[in-house]
Amino acid sequence: MAKEPEEVWSGLLVEHIRPALMGRLVQGFIHNLSGPLQILSMQLEFLSFLRQKKKKLLEGVLLKGMDPDTREKLYQMLEGEDERLQNVVEQVERINQLLSAFSLKTNPDRTFIELNDFIREEIIFWEANLFFKHEVKKELSLFPSGVTVKTIYPLLRGAVDLVLCWIIDYGFDEEKVITFETRPDPSLVIAYKGTPIPQQTSVREVVRRGDPWPLYPVLAREIFQEIGNLEFKGNEAIFRFH
Amino acid sequence: MAKEPEEVWSGLLVEHIRPALMGRLVQGFIHNLSGPLQILSMQLEFLSFLRQKKKKLLEGVLLKGMDPDTREKLYQMLEGEDERLQNVVEQVERINQLLSAFSLKTNPDRTFIELNDFIREEIIFWEANLFFKHEVKKELSLFPSGVTVKTIYPLLRGAVDLVLCWIIDYGFDEEKVITFETRPDPSLVIAYKGTPIPQQTSVREVVRRGDPWPLYPVLAREIFQEIGNLEFKGNEAIFRFH
Repeated sequence: MAKEPEEVWSGLLVEHIRPALMGRLVQGFIHNLSGPLQILSMQLEFLSFLRQKKKKLLEGVLLKGMDPDTREKLYQMLEGEDERLQNVVEQVERINQLLSAFSLKTNPDRTFIELNDFIREEIIFWEANLFFKHEVKKELSLFPSGVTVKTIYPLLRGAVDLVLCWIIDYGFDEEKVITFETRPDPSLVIAYKGTPIPQQTSVREVVRRGDPWPLYPVLAREIFQEIGNLEFKGNEAIFRFH
Repeated sequence: MAKEPEEVWSGLLVEHIRPALMGRLVQGFIHNLSGPLQILSMQLEFLSFLRQKKKKLLEGVLLKGMDPDTREKLYQMLEGEDERLQNVVEQVERINQLLSAFSLKTNPDRTFIELNDFIREEIIFWEANLFFKHEVKKELSLFPSGVTVKTIYPLLRGAVDLVLCWIIDYGFDEEKVITFETRPDPSLVIAYKGTPIPQQTSVREVVRRGDPWPLYPVLAREIFQEIGNLEFKGNEAIFRFH
């Protein structure tokens, strides 16, 4: 039995409310995480400074007649500590990278964005989707010397996220491959194997038909039109910048 | 000019889509954060073990005729390092607490939940809303010996989150005070000063009227009815458990 459009839309809304609530809190969550992380980083830096100082002092002391066995043991222990601390610093770096990829960066002005960097960060962000992380093969075809555009970050990010969301939810067939390409025209192309992206004219039309299937790509195009032209051509989404 | 209900609902949906997308990725994000955090914790634990061992070795060495000044200096440095490491461990603990409050814990079975702990974690979670964190005064009136219920965590969490979301968005007047109370009947009461929570019968009715204002509390009641009875009485939301 076909559902009334009203029922479809209220159902869809209800389905989005709880995750939207989480989504709205994400930025504050990241903000609250960054406090302890900053203190942690500062302490680690200071610790590294203290260890340098101590090492000098110990070396002065060690030279004064410690037996070679004990000295060797001590050196090994200090090195073991240093290795572990180095690993801690690397993990903090990794955590900061994840936080950065998840930060919304809501600046509404046009800024210079390097598309290769943008794609790399976008992939880190989407790896929060464990299906995307583990099952999807990501291929990169990035223009070697980089492609810089002056554009509005949240609109670019919003449009790309919606297209990726649609591809991940509906697009793939058996083979889960996605290709990110940057071109110097300048443009950004997301290609994949599977069902073509549906062509519809507007969110209003999608709503009128009561079929939510093409909602994400259509919304992506509406978001992107302020900064460029988003074309769906079979299994390709082509983001061309004004 | 009044909008068509269809327009209201599609507008609301579009408004929720982007944050919902973030919200759906939050759990994977937390999962990806927990990897480096675990390694970091392990390294810190091993480091503390190494430092104990080294201290013993150094103490043996130090006793053998190091001059008192140098010995004092060295001890101070070691203590300085220990303090800093201790602070690093505390920050990691704080980060883990934030991650835990943000984890959805989607277990669909009834489990024992202590409501005082639940409220404390819920407040940490909502502090991701910086308005709630900085502007709202939180008052606790927790039953001293604790209140344990056997209930379904995601339903409780979902209903409480929606009620809090409504209070934060629409409920407060000038004075921003919210009180969390646990009672041994067993029940949980969220009270605040300001606009009373609207009484409506169902999500369907809200949708039919085309006015999204009472959507969150009504949805909260629908979610909660599987595990209890949620009553809105003026400025109180009373969660009674079956």
